[in-house]
Amino acid sequence: MMSTQYDDLMQRLLQGETRAAARLITLTENDINAAETIIHSVYKHTGNAYILGITGAPGSGKSTFISTLIQKLLKEDRKIGVICVDPSSPLTGGALLGDRIRMKDMFSSDNVFIRSMANRGQLGGLSRATEDVIKILDAYGCDIIIVETVGVGQSEVDIFRSAHTVLVLLVPGLGDDIQTIKAGIMEITDIFVVNKMDLPGADRKVAELIQMLELNMNYKYKSHEINKNVLTTEEWTPEIIQTNSITGQNFEELIEKIEKHHRFIQNQGIVSNYLRNRIKQETLQILKYKLIKKTENMFEDNSLIEKLIAQVIEKTMDPYEMANSIIRLLKFPVKDRDF
Amino acid sequence: MMSTQYDDLMQRLLQGETRAAARLITLTENDINAAETIIHSVYKHTGNAYILGITGAPGSGKSTFISTLIQKLLKEDRKIGVICVDPSSPLTGGALLGDRIRMKDMFSSDNVFIRSMANRGQLGGLSRATEDVIKILDAYGCDIIIVETVGVGQSEVDIFRSAHTVLVLLVPGLGDDIQTIKAGIMEITDIFVVNKMDLPGADRKVAELIQMLELNMNYKYKSHEINKNVLTTEEWTPEIIQTNSITGQNFEELIEKIEKHHRFIQNQGIVSNYLRNRIKQETLQILKYKLIKKTENMFEDNSLIEKLIAQVIEKTMDPYEMANSIIRLLKFPVKDRDF
Repeated sequence: MMSTQYDDLMQRLLQGETRAAARLITLTENDINAAETIIHSVYKHTGNAYILGITGAPGSGKSTFISTLIQKLLKEDRKIGVICVDPSSPLTGGALLGDRIRMKDMFSSDNVFIRSMANRGQLGGLSRATEDVIKILDAYGCDIIIVETVGVGQSEVDIFRSAHTVLVLLVPGLGDDIQTIKAGIMEITDIFVVNKMDLPGADRKVAELIQMLELNMNYKYKSHEINKNVLTTEEWTPEIIQTNSITGQNFEELIEKIEKHHRFIQNQGIVSNYLRNRIKQETLQILKYKLIKKTENMFEDNSLIEKLIAQVIEKTMDPYEMANSIIRLLKFPVKDRDF
Repeated sequence: MMSTQYDDLMQRLLQGETRAAARLITLTENDINAAETIIHSVYKHTGNAYILGITGAPGSGKSTFISTLIQKLLKEDRKIGVICVDPSSPLTGGALLGDRIRMKDMFSSDNVFIRSMANRGQLGGLSRATEDVIKILDAYGCDIIIVETVGVGQSEVDIFRSAHTVLVLLVPGLGDDIQTIKAGIMEITDIFVVNKMDLPGADRKVAELIQMLELNMNYKYKSHEINKNVLTTEEWTPEIIQTNSITGQNFEELIEKIEKHHRFIQNQGIVSNYLRNRIKQETLQILKYKLIKKTENMFEDNSLIEKLIAQVIEKTMDPYEMANSIIRLLKFPVKDRDF
């Protein structure tokens, strides 16, 4: 292995030192060049963690739910990582992460590693950054990595691409949470959790979910995302379970369902399929990030681009022509209509 | 002007023929090459429309609000365009656009043109596509173009970049709509509309807004997005108004506020500044779209990429190295750490 300035940290990471993990994560978040070097060293030590994606509407009690789930999953010599991702506020960069800080206080054990990530304006960078953190926690020795997102939308779909099992939290009474959650997340959910089952309306929420699933059944494993050169997969009917995160009710059953899904994706060859797709998607994310970065950098204080803008303002050129001029600057091999 | 297959449609568009506008919009949505040719012809006829961005949480009554606003804004020989954009469901492509169809029925007049757009999976393509539709409606002769989005989030921020004035709808009693709307939209809002003012809690909603604004005042016009080589701008304090879309109460005052904001951005040189930024952003969108498209196309059935993926699975290569290999294929002039 090529020697780098991160060798010492890498050594300590592989020995399971928490501070080394935290430091390496910060380095990857702040600098893509550091990320590149670090992931290069980390990569061959990955592939052991089981990745759980968890999301839910605001108010669905994700924080308490995850705390309880961790307590139930924790065994001696089992390590759990939690990555809390907040892609919701692109401009403020503000994340309501107080809950996560409380969660951190709860688990002072070295067996639980909790990390929060907010979108600090990285363009398409948050899912890439999350992938990096997953890899570092995997090499650090986490057996289970929980990736939690706070919102709904396209960002979550990207962030959850590497999750083996995706859980979505709903809550009785919140009339339109199914509606909210529908935006793209629905189709990638393996297990629906009706949390706060002690509240009135839990059974109705389950009924609503069943009704909705009858309309959209099995979307995930029919998806074109699944590589075609694999045997036909038996489809997975999303499971539904009610839980009470305060009392811990039904968490054993929930964990059984997660394990059932784990077996399902292993038996159906979906795991290896997922790995291929995940690599594709991740490389695509990195590529996009690099291409966009390169392009955006060109726009900073570039006199040629200022000239082009002036022409577009005068309407002697349109924005598409301007884009094509810039592509020529990027020295792509441009053929007509190649783009 | 170069003669193209769209010359006839273009002629009819400039004469204000509605069907030509509809047809050209469909063509630009379906095919980026068509978009390129059409926008090239259209572009020199643009720049007259005033663009209003409108968004709001689900349940805030956007549809009725916009219908009433159109009625109040409509005058003889004034044309209004409405573009309803739904970026919310990336996977289903489904948009709850029934309301918009009803809106269409209401205005059978040739002076109102209503168009719905849903995200059909175009990567970063929806804001680009919206820009194209704005240009076509501008050339068609619309004096005012209303761009409505149904959700909240980064997509809206991109879509609203070209809006001169941005309105956000809130509604009394919906406790967390401010919270929801906060995600990036807050900072680009010029006028807050507390709609359904007849409901209890309208005054409290106004108070909440004032409180929130005291924390974030004037973010928009301090933003780094504003080109620096312009005189210091007087800041705009976002206006707040209550409306009743059923009775039409306060719509005259609302229109006055919109006009006040119009004068503000003209007087402060922000309009011309916006035009520059809009061109920059739009060209960047087009570039991203083209670069990403090119990259994604490379991933389809590419034996070299399959070989690279196999190496990443075997861990003799990591995803960053794979991305770099592909960049070399794209024939960028790669210098070390250039990316």
